[in-house]
Amino acid sequence: MEHLTIEKVKEARKIIEKAARKTGLVHSSSLSGRNNIYLKSENLQLTGSFKLRGAYYKISKLTPEQKAKGVIACSAGNHAQGVALASRENNIKATIFIPATAPISKVEATRALGADIKLIDGVYDDAYKASVKFQEETGGIFIHPFNDIDVIAGQGTIALEIIEQLEDVDAVVVPIGGGGLISGVASVIKMLKPNCKVYGVQAENAASMYRSIKDNKRTELAHVNTFADGTAVKLPGDLTFEYCQKYVDEILTVSEDEIASAILTLMEKEKMVSEGAGALSVAAVLFDKIPLENKNIVCLVSGGNIDVNILSRVINRALLKTGRLCNLTIELLDKPGQLRDVSTIIAELGANVIRVRHNQGGEGTDINDCYLKISMETRNFEHFEKIKQALIDKGYNILSVIQ
Amino acid sequence: MEHLTIEKVKEARKIIEKAARKTGLVHSSSLSGRNNIYLKSENLQLTGSFKLRGAYYKISKLTPEQKAKGVIACSAGNHAQGVALASRENNIKATIFIPATAPISKVEATRALGADIKLIDGVYDDAYKASVKFQEETGGIFIHPFNDIDVIAGQGTIALEIIEQLEDVDAVVVPIGGGGLISGVASVIKMLKPNCKVYGVQAENAASMYRSIKDNKRTELAHVNTFADGTAVKLPGDLTFEYCQKYVDEILTVSEDEIASAILTLMEKEKMVSEGAGALSVAAVLFDKIPLENKNIVCLVSGGNIDVNILSRVINRALLKTGRLCNLTIELLDKPGQLRDVSTIIAELGANVIRVRHNQGGEGTDINDCYLKISMETRNFEHFEKIKQALIDKGYNILSVIQ
Repeated sequence: MEHLTIEKVKEARKIIEKAARKTGLVHSSSLSGRNNIYLKSENLQLTGSFKLRGAYYKISKLTPEQKAKGVIACSAGNHAQGVALASRENNIKATIFIPATAPISKVEATRALGADIKLIDGVYDDAYKASVKFQEETGGIFIHPFNDIDVIAGQGTIALEIIEQLEDVDAVVVPIGGGGLISGVASVIKMLKPNCKVYGVQAENAASMYRSIKDNKRTELAHVNTFADGTAVKLPGDLTFEYCQKYVDEILTVSEDEIASAILTLMEKEKMVSEGAGALSVAAVLFDKIPLENKNIVCLVSGGNIDVNILSRVINRALLKTGRLCNLTIELLDKPGQLRDVSTIIAELGANVIRVRHNQGGEGTDINDCYLKISMETRNFEHFEKIKQALIDKGYNILSVIQ
Repeated sequence: MEHLTIEKVKEARKIIEKAARKTGLVHSSSLSGRNNIYLKSENLQLTGSFKLRGAYYKISKLTPEQKAKGVIACSAGNHAQGVALASRENNIKATIFIPATAPISKVEATRALGADIKLIDGVYDDAYKASVKFQEETGGIFIHPFNDIDVIAGQGTIALEIIEQLEDVDAVVVPIGGGGLISGVASVIKMLKPNCKVYGVQAENAASMYRSIKDNKRTELAHVNTFADGTAVKLPGDLTFEYCQKYVDEILTVSEDEIASAILTLMEKEKMVSEGAGALSVAAVLFDKIPLENKNIVCLVSGGNIDVNILSRVINRALLKTGRLCNLTIELLDKPGQLRDVSTIIAELGANVIRVRHNQGGEGTDINDCYLKISMETRNFEHFEKIKQALIDKGYNILSVIQ
């Protein structure tokens, strides 16, 4: 196996900087506290994710004969866009297989970069099979999303930038899907700054590398289902597994609610759009999973390609889970003035009513009863409890609460 | 009246750089076409907007006696946060008057910066009156949000950065509320690069400076109501009016739908959260209002403090208006298999169903009828028309369409 050297990553950087942005490293005062937190914003990379780096270096290394045959990839997400842009810049043909269930916005973004799109009925595995068949027929070059030394070298260029941007970096926190990103980043960090820690983060619901490292062998998960869809990989690569074993200090996991909160925090505090995978590192810091104090920690925000419909759902979930949005159903007797009374109590305690549904005795309910469903913005859980108690004190019967 | 000199703006910059970020200038390939578009991202400024600059410079210029009395501001938004942070950094007391109707997130953000918050029942004018009374009682220093030479000088520092970051800048596009930002930016641009154009942008629904310049005198609007709430100013300042008359080449207006589309574009293509006011400049470019070709244009994205609940609504509106989200109500006969048939037609044409409501004969409808309401993600208007036609061809009766 070819060994990843610092020279190779430096070569990758020279090539990649023709096409990719050197993304910013910003200090985050809202996330800093126990540690000093910086964000490496690969969500602001061209194509919206770091994947461009690996794909671009890989493609630039192909021989003229290989380039003439075109490249092939199978992805519904960031890898597709990375390969598409890298191919366009190198004037070669890219054929990208995408499962037909992928969000339309991602398909259109890849198409806009000039790739030939093959929409395949079914899920990822069906698209993958079709791409393998196409590869056999055409002899095109299949670009693996993570288990490839050139791709890993390309992702490693991020670590070169981090070290330049923050000489005193003590730890880097990196999301893990297949493991290509962290393999490149951890290799470079450990070669140049052996005392700097490297933490990996996975979604609990897609923790294949976490499990594999614990088991000391590559372990395939039966199901992966997470907001961090860019990391929904059932089986790590053999190469990336080896790099993680060798270079990563610890792998942590975060829950779906923690990911949603991290996405919301990045939007509200840093004005950055991040996808689920991109927010994993921030979730780990936000929920105090990194066992460090008074250190300079870089969170790698790996991508920002989140479908806006999903984003709306994530925001709602995060607001509910942090006590900033509450849904309350109150039993009302059908007599006048009650909507006014309830509204007054809520307004006096400083909550904002967002939506009201007034249900005048439907099927299966007592004909005299009606229900008032109120969605309101609150400051936090304590604030909501105060409002609930005030309603109860005035004799209202709370039928249900959704937080 | 004190005249704004380049020396004053340079002095402001030296002071401001202790507390504010030099924000990035990024090329936007998605917005570039007829012109080459760059984004000056003041939404990524500390406190989420440019307002910090003016407030910081103003406060730093106060005498020790003035500082001891503390500062006072009235704002529900960016000015509040700018004054709060600037005061904290200068170790002086800030009292901020906020109308009680302001979004909770903005109140909390200002409180978190250490300001003393006075929540006043009613709208902005009520909060303003209370702040004037408080000023008379305490002798504190009132920090005006825009009509102040020091504040204008502080905002002008953005133009110094732009010129450094893009020497070949041909035009700068700047949002206008009260006019403080554009007064500072336009003054500096015209003093250092007289051939560079300066365009102002206002929301159609809050176009007080646009109207005043047309009328050649300051004109007060009766109502202002816009997504770009940071620019909802009824009457421009006398100082800022004068600067706009003197230095601004043209003022353009954009509609609420154009603002919503610009916010969505910034999120999807640039992974940036922008508030309505912040997106005005991008809306002007996106809807081809700038009368230039093959030029280097900088859009000033002035802020990112948008309430997430409003953001959800803006996204929905933009998706509807661009044909990417459609709501369809279909009349169904109450016989089996129709939901399956309709779903099949939609799936085959490649749209994603997001929400379905099946209404089994409610009040006022024929007992045999039921309705199917479907929300679906589509590629664009043509795509939706195809789906609609396919349903009609199969004999379905479309009752209503919301686009």
